[in-house]
Amino acid sequence: MARTAVVAGVGPGLGESIARKFASEGCNVGLFARSDEYLGELAGELHAETAGDAAAVPTDITDESQVESAFERVRETFGPVDVLVNHAGGGGWSGLRESSAEEFEDAWRSCAYGAFLCSKRAVSDMVDGDGGTVIFTGATSAVRGRGGAAGFSSAKFAVRGLAESMARELGPKGVHVAHAVIDGQILTPDAREQADGRSEDTFLDPDAIAESYWHLVEQDRTAWTLELDLRPAVEEF
Amino acid sequence: MARTAVVAGVGPGLGESIARKFASEGCNVGLFARSDEYLGELAGELHAETAGDAAAVPTDITDESQVESAFERVRETFGPVDVLVNHAGGGGWSGLRESSAEEFEDAWRSCAYGAFLCSKRAVSDMVDGDGGTVIFTGATSAVRGRGGAAGFSSAKFAVRGLAESMARELGPKGVHVAHAVIDGQILTPDAREQADGRSEDTFLDPDAIAESYWHLVEQDRTAWTLELDLRPAVEEF
Amino acid sequence: MARTAVVAGVGPGLGESIARKFASEGCNVGLFARSDEYLGELAGELHAETAGDAAAVPTDITDESQVESAFERVRETFGPVDVLVNHAGGGGWSGLRESSAEEFEDAWRSCAYGAFLCSKRAVSDMVDGDGGTVIFTGATSAVRGRGGAAGFSSAKFAVRGLAESMARELGPKGVHVAHAVIDGQILTPDAREQADGRSEDTFLDPDAIAESYWHLVEQDRTAWTLELDLRPAVEEF
Amino acid sequence: MARTAVVAGVGPGLGESIARKFASEGCNVGLFARSDEYLGELAGELHAETAGDAAAVPTDITDESQVESAFERVRETFGPVDVLVNHAGGGGWSGLRESSAEEFEDAWRSCAYGAFLCSKRAVSDMVDGDGGTVIFTGATSAVRGRGGAAGFSSAKFAVRGLAESMARELGPKGVHVAHAVIDGQILTPDAREQADGRSEDTFLDPDAIAESYWHLVEQDRTAWTLELDLRPAVEEF
Repeated sequence: MARTAVVAGVGPGLGESIARKFASEGCNVGLFARSDEYLGELAGELHAETAGDAAAVPTDITDESQVESAFERVRETFGPVDVLVNHAGGGGWSGLRESSAEEFEDAWRSCAYGAFLCSKRAVSDMVDGDGGTVIFTGATSAVRGRGGAAGFSSAKFAVRGLAESMARELGPKGVHVAHAVIDGQILTPDAREQADGRSEDTFLDPDAIAESYWHLVEQDRTAWTLELDLRPAVEEF
Repeated sequence: MARTAVVAGVGPGLGESIARKFASEGCNVGLFARSDEYLGELAGELHAETAGDAAAVPTDITDESQVESAFERVRETFGPVDVLVNHAGGGGWSGLRESSAEEFEDAWRSCAYGAFLCSKRAVSDMVDGDGGTVIFTGATSAVRGRGGAAGFSSAKFAVRGLAESMARELGPKGVHVAHAVIDGQILTPDAREQADGRSEDTFLDPDAIAESYWHLVEQDRTAWTLELDLRPAVEEF
Repeated sequence: MARTAVVAGVGPGLGESIARKFASEGCNVGLFARSDEYLGELAGELHAETAGDAAAVPTDITDESQVESAFERVRETFGPVDVLVNHAGGGGWSGLRESSAEEFEDAWRSCAYGAFLCSKRAVSDMVDGDGGTVIFTGATSAVRGRGGAAGFSSAKFAVRGLAESMARELGPKGVHVAHAVIDGQILTPDAREQADGRSEDTFLDPDAIAESYWHLVEQDRTAWTLELDLRPAVEEF
Repeated sequence: MARTAVVAGVGPGLGESIARKFASEGCNVGLFARSDEYLGELAGELHAETAGDAAAVPTDITDESQVESAFERVRETFGPVDVLVNHAGGGGWSGLRESSAEEFEDAWRSCAYGAFLCSKRAVSDMVDGDGGTVIFTGATSAVRGRGGAAGFSSAKFAVRGLAESMARELGPKGVHVAHAVIDGQILTPDAREQADGRSEDTFLDPDAIAESYWHLVEQDRTAWTLELDLRPAVEEF
């Protein structure tokens, strides 16, 4: 039977690559993001071009009741959730002195609070069923706080702490929790346009990242990975 | 001239030990916590017994305008702030499945958001003046997410990410930022009462921790510590 | 053209699973270990059963001239080396007070020094050619020193330090260096026999680990992993 | 009664600062290094200028029998050892491809093997007596392998693995093991001469580091630190 996957935070770039990879492996994918139109187009493409199916589910993942409805909608359409990718979040790219309280809070809300709300809904399906996989998109700032990005660093650390706690709680219940540390800039359409002569091999190819996400989903339950890092060969680190 | 210190999150236990140590070294200490009466008594004791002075400043550190007023009050009483200890915070000791969204948010708010609000106010004094020190009280769950403590782990990671980001932003501005990883249970009056035969040397003595906090304050600016761990000799880790 | 792989430290268990997986993906595999007879049998099996080929190369990897000859032999048989797995090493499972200097040194020699000697020979082929992959088998004791295993912990840390240094030196030269942290006991034939009622899902299946090693080999050069951990779902950590 | 300390690896710079600080706190200090003359002069100075005393013990710390004799000499002169600082070691500052096997081995031998030999001798006194302290001088390359320093990185990781293992083995026996991560260049006499206009506050002052080493010695056994980092305020990291 086809697996049901949710990608929370889909946009052109990594979110889309993950959705496409998972659908091409036969998953039915619930696409969560705020933007209605883009999601609809992507769902149509995945439906037409891949072995799986997709449903556009416009959602503000920082709103608990919207998250609840979104998961309800996915369940009705495709059945219980087997895989969740917490990929949303951003903001908070200023130093302590320049950050407002709102900016600091918003970064946490979109990164960590949204991932908490989505995980809570997805994991109940997995624990009640045959297990599943939850993958978090992390960043270098999740393992090494960056000067000048107080809100983002704090929020990304918060995500990693949540992921580790969930891994220890839920592994024995059959839920594989993983945290991917993306170290570098992803080659989104925007990045490609603004690259301005910078060589493409200095960016992470989002399709290549999606391959590793799928590998995490496919890992045998006797050899699960909690954390891996991903970076271009040429990245200094 | 006497240094001005703020301890945000003072209660019987480590907060009180830090305040007492700093006052005994001659600091004038602003005591932040919600509880009016306890703070007043402690301020009286420190005034009477130590080389420094103390002011009780009842404050909800998760409320931005209260934090602003509290720092104003400290400045008027003792002058610009030289040292801040972000010691408040707790909660979130349940697994993902048992945590409510409110509980998850409250843990973050008391640990990370409050520390952000206090740091922002304190640091402006330090950067404009002769520098200073900001110490964060961390926990093992700040470096290793604990199963069954989703909210607490995520919140304590968030604090550590903030501390690291601030250290990189503010070090060159003369502000020493440090994060202490407390690994074990502190011998508070409550812990002592409930110890129930458990040997006292399995707890961290709060006065001993305060010695290391003071050492951080006194470090020369050519050899600053960002992170240290503290645990009893007998603790398994 | 078929890739050439070397597995340094082949024995029943993970080494054999890696060799078999790589050969089944079409690699020609050089098998390094001290034991002549076992290697010959395994090489025969891989030759007969897989898409690739294999050569038994009895070698003491802690002896520089033997290592040099072994790589010469592999190059003559299969061509320049594309993939190296540094899998050998062990020993040093006693505390500081019980360890002899010899035991401490032997653990380092078989884990770190052997990996250095093999890496040096393999990497020259990779840098001169189209790049390649070097994978190190690590352990939990490579990231968290274990009480009562002074020699092993120190040796496994030494391996990880070498891997990280090599990753930074050689990534831009097209060589992907990775370090796998194996957290738990591998289900070798010996472990299976001695399991004594212990459930098999508490062990790591070596074939499952080999899948992740192969994923590392196949990663796109814009999204390389330096480190991943691997453990059974049920492992406490 | 005066404590007996051993500083293994004394030279102008940090080793000397540690010896002087410890002697000025009343310790009797055994000075280990290869260079006869320098040690004798330093011992004379410490004897004349500090509250404690000092003995020059010319020793090759990578030679087991010399280490044994050196500790025997210290015991006869000052009594059982209470504090050991493993401060020796270096070398290995080239990339994998440029490193010879000898260079790789020498770095390990002077950093890790020597520390093992010294620790083994010192710790027996501590466990049999009233406990004690063992401090290891680490480097950034002990926690983050540096490209182009394969031998040094591997050796410094090996030291850290040994320190962590010893901390877990020996903490409950009353021995405090600590690892200091020195992040930056120390202002030795040589560094001062070659500074060439570089501001002194970009170096670590060795006397300032020695203050933190002494703090580690003085920590209460309910609040011991295993690891701390030390760097100049202005250091980027």
